[in-house]
Amino acid sequence: MVKFSKKIQTMDHSPIRKFYKYADEAKKKGKKVYHLNIGQPDIKTPSVFMDAIKSFDKDIIEYMPSQGINDLIAQIRNYYERHDVYFDNNDIIITHGGSEALTFTLLCITNEGDEVIVPEPYYSNYNIFIKGTGAKIVPITTYAENGFHFADEEEIVRRITKRTKAILLTNPGNPTGTVLTMKEMRMIADIAKQHDIFIISDEVYREFVYDDSPVTSFGQLPDVTDRVVLIDSISKRFSACGARIGALLTKNQELLDHVMKLCQGRLSCSTLDMIGATELYKLPPSYFDEVKEEYEKRRNIVYDILSKVEGVVCRKPSGAFYLTAKLPVADAEEFLIWMLTSFDVDNETVMFAPVEGFYETPGLGKNEIRIAYVLNEKDLRRAMEILKAGLEKYVSLTTI
Amino acid sequence: MVKFSKKIQTMDHSPIRKFYKYADEAKKKGKKVYHLNIGQPDIKTPSVFMDAIKSFDKDIIEYMPSQGINDLIAQIRNYYERHDVYFDNNDIIITHGGSEALTFTLLCITNEGDEVIVPEPYYSNYNIFIKGTGAKIVPITTYAENGFHFADEEEIVRRITKRTKAILLTNPGNPTGTVLTMKEMRMIADIAKQHDIFIISDEVYREFVYDDSPVTSFGQLPDVTDRVVLIDSISKRFSACGARIGALLTKNQELLDHVMKLCQGRLSCSTLDMIGATELYKLPPSYFDEVKEEYEKRRNIVYDILSKVEGVVCRKPSGAFYLTAKLPVADAEEFLIWMLTSFDVDNETVMFAPVEGFYETPGLGKNEIRIAYVLNEKDLRRAMEILKAGLEKYVSLTTI
Repeated sequence: MVKFSKKIQTMDHSPIRKFYKYADEAKKKGKKVYHLNIGQPDIKTPSVFMDAIKSFDKDIIEYMPSQGINDLIAQIRNYYERHDVYFDNNDIIITHGGSEALTFTLLCITNEGDEVIVPEPYYSNYNIFIKGTGAKIVPITTYAENGFHFADEEEIVRRITKRTKAILLTNPGNPTGTVLTMKEMRMIADIAKQHDIFIISDEVYREFVYDDSPVTSFGQLPDVTDRVVLIDSISKRFSACGARIGALLTKNQELLDHVMKLCQGRLSCSTLDMIGATELYKLPPSYFDEVKEEYEKRRNIVYDILSKVEGVVCRKPSGAFYLTAKLPVADAEEFLIWMLTSFDVDNETVMFAPVEGFYETPGLGKNEIRIAYVLNEKDLRRAMEILKAGLEKYVSLTTI
Repeated sequence: MVKFSKKIQTMDHSPIRKFYKYADEAKKKGKKVYHLNIGQPDIKTPSVFMDAIKSFDKDIIEYMPSQGINDLIAQIRNYYERHDVYFDNNDIIITHGGSEALTFTLLCITNEGDEVIVPEPYYSNYNIFIKGTGAKIVPITTYAENGFHFADEEEIVRRITKRTKAILLTNPGNPTGTVLTMKEMRMIADIAKQHDIFIISDEVYREFVYDDSPVTSFGQLPDVTDRVVLIDSISKRFSACGARIGALLTKNQELLDHVMKLCQGRLSCSTLDMIGATELYKLPPSYFDEVKEEYEKRRNIVYDILSKVEGVVCRKPSGAFYLTAKLPVADAEEFLIWMLTSFDVDNETVMFAPVEGFYETPGLGKNEIRIAYVLNEKDLRRAMEILKAGLEKYVSLTTI
């Protein structure tokens, strides 16, 4: 039978996928599993989304313009203006989630063998998007000990080669929760200018910044607008993951022109999802106050419980809804399987994401896990207490 | 500034795009333009689609499984069973339209420089999907004189090289309306087996076959199930183009496994669109009787009027909702611009699709146009009479 492409063979399955069977088995046995492993928020999708869709009264669900519907584009432009980021309508392209925005950007700028610099641990699906174009990930390794900080000029510059096309980063970070300061962003921008590379800034967690820190965006830097590509999405911002509406924003007109070819190829995003998303972007900035307060409270619960366990290494993250910690275990994947198959507190246990699959460098992250704090306060506290108890027991069993 | 990828630079914009400005100008001057240029049907989307979505009563629009929701997959399996095509649920993957199904299939099987055989004229977006993987289109040229027939063994075989990975075809055809017979499909299947290549069969117009011809599918051939990939979509079938729900179906388990990596990368299709699509697939087969009758009537109108114009070459197409004809003009693009800028009948004119952009071979199709019969009978008849009058006048003006 015919062979498959090199590109697809270098890609891995979602690193969390292989653990679902253990969670399913646990549930079949009547065990309750708290899911701290996925970024599916439990916050309600604002009702304006469904209200707008329910009011749709046309007889035909037609194709919409490949760039996206004008109303949604205009609302996104307004939303950015409120963050002091100024785009024209023509600079904004609506995509099937942030995923498509990333895929299209990378397809436009990377040839087979080109390189994209990515701080690791990174959102593991970048693996799929980058390798899908035939390009390679060049990782900048970051460490739990210093809060997964990566904005170090020397560390970035020494990875740039003739084949480097871009630095791709998530800010606030997934899986780390690390947030860049304006000063760090300025430094990255200067490197990008000097070495003539793109900055692809995945800012889908933009609002989720705690401790009264300001919301920052690479769109705020006026001298790199032609090399900055912002990746955005309603999934996390409005807790609407199942509505596949993202956006690609850039002032680079040549890139926009190329991306539009790909958009025309796939014709249109979902008409109804775009109609709903338009209303989400009309929500006042105050909408985020309550949401942020809720997540900040949860972040504190996770950090307070986990950081006090002996041997755990983590810094308090400032953003997104993730925390990555180094555990006093040899292999976090084995620990997860043990939690699902062999541990419970009153017949309840916890699933989290081992972080090894979020690293490009083989062997790193083996003892790290990511917690997604996407449960309500009560459940989250309970889940974290179970995790703590499990971890302490596992350590006592494995270090005899 | 950094260069863009070779892949994106070999791609063209949608070939119809450059003519919209002429249509817009005509409309600004108060001219009515009948659109026979796009495959956006005017048939109503069955109301079960919106009814199901309006009944959605969960508080959160969550991610759904990357493969698609179980209910929709089960309904698609049932739909295929009614056509004597038997898939397991695991053989079916829901995609963002047929476009994503094609993109994912090609990404899994083609390396840079590989070849995909495609009969031309072809659906022009194949250009984007194939070139996006770095592969090349190897065209089999077909001709209006014999109804764009391409299932000729010698013509196919002589294009197969060591780098050929697949033959990609649309059946029923776009832009040609040509339908393969079971005998022709058998022959193509035998070639694919002998030369160990995939058959990617885009069957999104499956039901639209006229003159009481049977509905055929490459899924009906039992000995090539491991090399057949069916591409499907609700867009045309249920007149739901703006709901981005397609499907990839194959019995090749290795391909499914690879495609699932890409699906996990983009996380989920639209939750609401999948819920609506599930109800569409529950519609009884009789739903298509009326739709087919309507399109067959329209096909006859287009064919009867156009084929009688002196110098026009076309055969009566058997399927889809397109007809491609050779006109007695030197350049169909110039003729279209003239129709939009300089011709009208009582202040009305017609837009169609020049077919040159649907050919891979440079210079071919310059005098061909595609008519999409997506208007109601009255409007379609009026539009075709205007086209006939315009064509006759244009010929008289240009052949002095």
